[in-house]
Amino acid sequence: MDIRKVFGANVRVYRLAAGLSQEAIAARMGVDRAYVSAIERGLQNVTLLTILQVAESLNVRPADLLVESVQKSRS
Amino acid sequence: MDIRKVFGANVRVYRLAAGLSQEAIAARMGVDRAYVSAIERGLQNVTLLTILQVAESLNVRPADLLVESVQKSRS
Repeated sequence: MDIRKVFGANVRVYRLAAGLSQEAIAARMGVDRAYVSAIERGLQNVTLLTILQVAESLNVRPADLLVESVQKSRS
Repeated sequence: MDIRKVFGANVRVYRLAAGLSQEAIAARMGVDRAYVSAIERGLQNVTLLTILQVAESLNVRPADLLVESVQKSRS
């Protein structure tokens, strides 16, 4: 498991399910869109505090973003 | 939610449930016992790759370590 890719794919799944753009999530987090894009592509080894920040911006629980199956069951 | 404290408390719950010492987990991870102790006390803002490393050392899923209720339901 590449946990960075699992996390990124889940962020994307929940973001799209919420009908939000990367810009919208970036604005909620106070970060640049490119950072959200890098997260979704599995390129960021984010920390617990960033996981929480992303989860809050998507209104999901942090644990939801680390579940390996989400990206498969919803794609 | 202080996600560092949630993560740390869950690491401790699963470690004790597995009957393992901090030394044993530290050895599996190739880190110092003091680092495991700091994690369990919620003092470490660990990254995704460390979350995976801890989860593998405890034979649990990474998401299990971020679930807020584990520490309450099992303590």
